[in-house]
Amino acid sequence: MKELHEKIIQDGKVLSNDVLKVDAFLNHQIDPPLMQAIGEEFAARFKEDGITKILTIESSGIAPAMMTGLIIGTPVVFARKKKSLTMSDHLFTSSVHSFTKKETNEISVSKDFLQKGDKVLLMDDFLANGQAVLGLLDIIEQAEAELVGVGIVIEKGFQPGGAMIREKGIRVESLAIIQSLEDGKVTFANGESNE
Amino acid sequence: MKELHEKIIQDGKVLSNDVLKVDAFLNHQIDPPLMQAIGEEFAARFKEDGITKILTIESSGIAPAMMTGLIIGTPVVFARKKKSLTMSDHLFTSSVHSFTKKETNEISVSKDFLQKGDKVLLMDDFLANGQAVLGLLDIIEQAEAELVGVGIVIEKGFQPGGAMIREKGIRVESLAIIQSLEDGKVTFANGESNE
Repeated sequence: MKELHEKIIQDGKVLSNDVLKVDAFLNHQIDPPLMQAIGEEFAARFKEDGITKILTIESSGIAPAMMTGLIIGTPVVFARKKKSLTMSDHLFTSSVHSFTKKETNEISVSKDFLQKGDKVLLMDDFLANGQAVLGLLDIIEQAEAELVGVGIVIEKGFQPGGAMIREKGIRVESLAIIQSLEDGKVTFANGESNE
Repeated sequence: MKELHEKIIQDGKVLSNDVLKVDAFLNHQIDPPLMQAIGEEFAARFKEDGITKILTIESSGIAPAMMTGLIIGTPVVFARKKKSLTMSDHLFTSSVHSFTKKETNEISVSKDFLQKGDKVLLMDDFLANGQAVLGLLDIIEQAEAELVGVGIVIEKGFQPGGAMIREKGIRVESLAIIQSLEDGKVTFANGESNE
C-alpha cells in the first residue's frame, strides 16, 4: 500500500536491525486519515468474504480495525490483555508471549461477542513472531467461529510469524511487508526502500 | 446524545449500583457507526476551539478519540499504561489509580507528540473518579500544552470525578451523564431512564 510505505519511510524510525518504531502514526500517536485509508484497503481486500466480525487485540490494533469495521459494516472486538474485575468467567482465554516486552499476557474475549457462525477477520498492527495471531486463532477456534483471513498493517517479513501463519493455509494480507531493516534502512518486500 | 442514551439503555448492563457494563459497544466490542456518531458530536462541540491534538489513554479511549480526530482533522495520541521497551526515556509520565481494577498504572506520553503550543482535547470513554483525567492533565501541564476541554463518552454523575474536574474551571463535555444505577435501572441526568 503506497500511502503506508511512504509514511513508514517518512516517519518510521529504524532503531536496530529488528526494531522499527512507528509510534508517530500507528501505535502511540495515530494518524486518523491514514487509518481511514488502511480501513479502505482492508475493506477492498476482504469485501467479498462475508465477514461478520473483526477480532483484534488492544491497543494498537484498535484504530485500523475500527476503521475497517466502519467501512465493511461489522462490529470490532478487541481481546483484552488482562482480565478486568468487571468481566465474568464467561470468557475465551489464551496466552500471548511478547518478545518485545519480554512478558506473557493472558488474553481474553467475552463469549458474548464471538460465536459459532461468525466469519472473522483477524487484524493486528504488526506481524513479527506471530504470537498474538496464534493466541487470537486459538480463541477463534474455541468459539468455533470461522477464520476468513488475517489483516496486518506492517509485517516484518524477516521474522518468522508470516511464514508460520501462511503455512497453516491461512490467508494473510499485509499492507506493508518489510524485508530488511539492515543498516538503518527500510527495505520493503516489493523492493522499495528509503534510499 | 440521544443515540448514545438509546444504546446504553438497549445494550448496557447494570451490574450493581456502581457498575455499568458497556462492553457490547464501547470497551470490548466496538460499534463503529456509534463511534462515528460520537466523533461527530465531539467535533460539533469543539470545532471552534482550534484543537491541534487529541489526548486519550489506552485502550477504550482510542476508538472515540480516533473518530473525533478524523472529523476535526487532528492527530490522536494515546497515553500508554506501561513503558514499552522500545520507548526511550523521552517521556512525560504520571500515575493513575484505577478503583475498578484496584491497581495503579504509570502512564506515559512521548515528548515527541505533545508540545508547548498544542491545544489539547482530552478524551476518555468513562469519567467516574476522574483519576485518568487527572493523570492526563498532569501530562498536559508537564508538556506546557494548553488544555481546551475534556470530552467524555459516559460520565457517572454520581461519582466525584466530574465535579472535581469542573471545579478546576475545566470545560467537561459528557455525551451521556448517568445520575443513578440504582435498582438495576439507568437514570440519566436529564431524567431519561430505561423504564
